[in-house]
Amino acid sequence: MDSHDRVFVDGAIVIQHNSIIAIGKSINILTQFTSISHQLIDLRGQILLPGLINTHVHTSQQLARGIADDVDLLTWLHDRIWPYESNMTEEDSFISTLLCGIELIHSGVTCFAEAGGQHVSGMASAVEVLGLRACLAESIMDYGEGLPASWAARTTEECIKSQKDLFMKHHNTADGRIKVWLGIRQIMNSTDRLLTETRDTAKELETGIHMHIAEIPYENQLIVETRGVDNGTVTYLEKIKFLQNNLLAAHTVWVNEKEVDCLAKAGVKVSHCPAAAMRMLGFAPIKEMLSAGVCVSLGTDGAPSNNRMSIVDEMYLASLINKGREVFSTGTTDPTALPAETILKMATINGAKSVLWDKEIGSLEADIVVINPSSWSMMPIHDCISSLVYCMRTENIVSVMCNGCWIMKDKKILTVDEEKVLSMAKHASAELLKRAGIQIPNRMNFV
Amino acid sequence: MDSHDRVFVDGAIVIQHNSIIAIGKSINILTQFTSISHQLIDLRGQILLPGLINTHVHTSQQLARGIADDVDLLTWLHDRIWPYESNMTEEDSFISTLLCGIELIHSGVTCFAEAGGQHVSGMASAVEVLGLRACLAESIMDYGEGLPASWAARTTEECIKSQKDLFMKHHNTADGRIKVWLGIRQIMNSTDRLLTETRDTAKELETGIHMHIAEIPYENQLIVETRGVDNGTVTYLEKIKFLQNNLLAAHTVWVNEKEVDCLAKAGVKVSHCPAAAMRMLGFAPIKEMLSAGVCVSLGTDGAPSNNRMSIVDEMYLASLINKGREVFSTGTTDPTALPAETILKMATINGAKSVLWDKEIGSLEADIVVINPSSWSMMPIHDCISSLVYCMRTENIVSVMCNGCWIMKDKKILTVDEEKVLSMAKHASAELLKRAGIQIPNRMNFV
Repeated sequence: MDSHDRVFVDGAIVIQHNSIIAIGKSINILTQFTSISHQLIDLRGQILLPGLINTHVHTSQQLARGIADDVDLLTWLHDRIWPYESNMTEEDSFISTLLCGIELIHSGVTCFAEAGGQHVSGMASAVEVLGLRACLAESIMDYGEGLPASWAARTTEECIKSQKDLFMKHHNTADGRIKVWLGIRQIMNSTDRLLTETRDTAKELETGIHMHIAEIPYENQLIVETRGVDNGTVTYLEKIKFLQNNLLAAHTVWVNEKEVDCLAKAGVKVSHCPAAAMRMLGFAPIKEMLSAGVCVSLGTDGAPSNNRMSIVDEMYLASLINKGREVFSTGTTDPTALPAETILKMATINGAKSVLWDKEIGSLEADIVVINPSSWSMMPIHDCISSLVYCMRTENIVSVMCNGCWIMKDKKILTVDEEKVLSMAKHASAELLKRAGIQIPNRMNFV
Repeated sequence: MDSHDRVFVDGAIVIQHNSIIAIGKSINILTQFTSISHQLIDLRGQILLPGLINTHVHTSQQLARGIADDVDLLTWLHDRIWPYESNMTEEDSFISTLLCGIELIHSGVTCFAEAGGQHVSGMASAVEVLGLRACLAESIMDYGEGLPASWAARTTEECIKSQKDLFMKHHNTADGRIKVWLGIRQIMNSTDRLLTETRDTAKELETGIHMHIAEIPYENQLIVETRGVDNGTVTYLEKIKFLQNNLLAAHTVWVNEKEVDCLAKAGVKVSHCPAAAMRMLGFAPIKEMLSAGVCVSLGTDGAPSNNRMSIVDEMYLASLINKGREVFSTGTTDPTALPAETILKMATINGAKSVLWDKEIGSLEADIVVINPSSWSMMPIHDCISSLVYCMRTENIVSVMCNGCWIMKDKKILTVDEEKVLSMAKHASAELLKRAGIQIPNRMNFV
C-alpha cells in the first residue's frame, strides 16, 4: 500500500520493537539482516497485508446484535437502540467492546474508529486489553425530541466538558494505541452551539471528529427547513466551517455533486458502510467521491445495523453494491466500477488517513495481517488482489499483529480469553435487554 | 420448514436409513424411541437446519475463479469464459465440480442445480463421490455469433440427442442423488426449434429445464426486435408455451409486472443470485415476485461471477440488496423487506421446490446441516432466525448430512480428500488457462 503500489512476491519484512524497519524481496532481506536470522518467522505460502482499518463501528452495540432486524427505522431507534444504549453500564460497554474486538481481530482489523457510543472509559479498558488501536468517541447529543430522560438532561457544556475529560484521561494511553476523538451523533440531535464548540475543541486538542452525516433524505429536508440552506447537512456544515480535514463523516449517503466537491476541498474523510447503507440508508455516491478526490474508507457500522462486523465482508459488499448501483444511472451495472485494488486501499491506507494515523500505520508501524489463501474458499488464485477482496473470508485470516505484538496467532486470540468473553457477553446482554424492557417477537412458531 | 413454520427448541429427530422418521421435542422423542437410545448423537447447543439448496451454480466454472473480475461483460464472455469453457476436458469438469462441491458442503449445501456446463459425465462422477444431490445440466447453445468453433458446429439435433444420452446414462444414479435436467444457456444462443424441442423433451423425460432468463436489457431488446413480441424473453417464452412448472429460470432480472404474473401463473421457479446480479446484471424484482406467488430460491452463480460459492453469504446479500433496492422505488430503503424467515425459506423449502424435489428433501429425507452458533460471529443471539440469516458464516457450519450419510463432520469433509482436490485444482486450472490462452493482467506493481 505504498505510493508505488508494490507487491513483494517472495517478500520479507524486518520488525524491530513495534516498527517495520525493512521490507523487500526475501533473498535481499535475508542477506542484509544475517545477524537476526535466528529470529525468523517462516510464513511461506501466506499473504501479508497491512492491518485492516474499520473506520465506523459502534463497539457498544455489539451486545445488541439481532435486537432490531427487519424493523422500520423508528422502531429501530426508539424501541430498540435508544432503550438499549441508555440502559448500558460502563461494564456493559467494556464487555461489548471486548466482544466486538474479538470479531474485529478475527476479521483482520488492527485499528478502528468508534462511531460514538456509551462509556468511553469502558471501551478504553477493553481496547487496552485487546491490543488494538482505536479512535474512541462518546455518543454526543444535546438536542432532540423523544430522547431518553438521562440523555435529554445533558447541556452543551456538559457534552463538551465530558469529552475534554475523556481526552485528558485516555488520549495517547495504552502505548499510544488509544486516541480520543470528539463525537457528534448526528445533526438532528445537535444545537448549533454544539457543532461550533466541537469544531473549536477539536482544533484546540488537535484531534478528530466522528459524525454521522446525511444518512436519510429526511435529515436533509429538516436542515433545509430549519437552518436556512438550500440543500442538506453537508451544505450547512460547509456554511458553519465545520468541514475540515479532521472530520470523519460516516455514511454520507445523500449528498449532491456540489456537496461532494465541498467534502473533497475540505479534506473530509468518508466512512462507507456498505451493509448498513443497503439495509437502512441508501446508496452513497462512492465512485463520484473517489473521482472527486475524497478519501473514502470502509466501516461496518454497529451490530444491530449490519450484523457482521467484518471488513472482509465489507470489501466484498463494497464491490458488489457500487457495481450494482450504476444500473440506476446508466441502465446497466458496471462490473468495472470500484476494482479490487481500489477497495483494498479503502480498507488499508485510506482507513489510516481517515483516522489521521497515516504517518504511522499502513507504512511504518508493525500492524500486519497474515492470510492463508490455500483453502477451498480462495483456491485457485488467478488474480491475487481480487481473490483477497472478493474470495477471502474471515476463515482465511490466520494471525494478526498490532503495534509489533501478535494479538492473534493461528486463529487463537492471545490477548483475551474468547470463551470467557462470550460467556460474559451472553449474560450481560440478556440482563441489559431485560433492564431496557426490550422484547424481540418470535418470527416462526417456536415449540 | 414445514407448513406450520415450526421451530423445535430442545428438539430431536430420528433417522432411519436415509429418512427422518420422527421429529419433535427431545423429551418426547427420547421417551418414544428408547430402543435406539444407544445410537444417540448429542448436538446440544447446536442448531439443525434442513440442508441448504443452491439452485444456480456453474460447477465447471470453479477453476475459473478470479479470471474475470472487474472486466466488462464482453471481455468477461468472449475473452475469458468462452475460451475457458471451450478448452475444458472431462477431467477438468470432474476436478472443478469436486472443488466446487467442497465449497458447497462447507457452506451447508446438500443439493444444487447445475446451471448448465461442460461435461456432465465429469460432473456426475464428482457428485457421486462428494455425496451431494444434484440436478445436472449441459450447457446448450445451437446458435449465436462469435461462438468458439467446437460449439458453433453443433446442430439442434445433436444438442437434444446429447442430453437424452446423458439422461439415460446418469438420471437417478448415485442412490437417486443425481438427476439430469435439460439446459438452455440463454435465448440469444437458442433457435426456436431448440426451445420447443427442449420443452417437449423435458415433458417426455419428466425432468426439469434450467435456463438463464432476462439477464440484461439488451437481451430483451433483441427479442423484441427479432421475435415479434412487445416485451422481452419472458413474454416470448410465454407465447411459445415454454413457461411451465418444470422451468427453473435463473436471474430473471429484467421482467415487468405482467411478466412476473406469467411466471407465477405458469409455476416457473426463479433462482435469485444476489451477488452475480449486483455485479453483472441488475436488481431483480424479488419482493414483487414473492408477492405474486412465484417460488424464488437462491443461487450463487459461478465462481467468475461472484466469487464466493456460499449460500450462507447469499442469504445475507439477499436481505441487504432487496432492502436497498426499495430506495429506487420509494426514496428510502425498506429494512422490513425480505425478512429473515422469508430468506431462510428461499434457501431451503423454496430451493427444494425449485429443483422439483420437495416431496422428498426439505421434509422426509435426511439432509441436515448442524450449526454451532456459540462463537464470536453469531453471539449474542437475541433473534435466532435472523442470526442464522444475517450473522452466520461458513465458520459456523460444523457438520452436513446428505441422504442419511454424514458428508462433513466437525468441519472435515468425509467423502473426498480436500488437500488432494486443492492440489489437483491448482494444477488443472493453470494448465487450462495456458491452453485457452487466458492471461490475467497484474493490478498492482508486483516485484
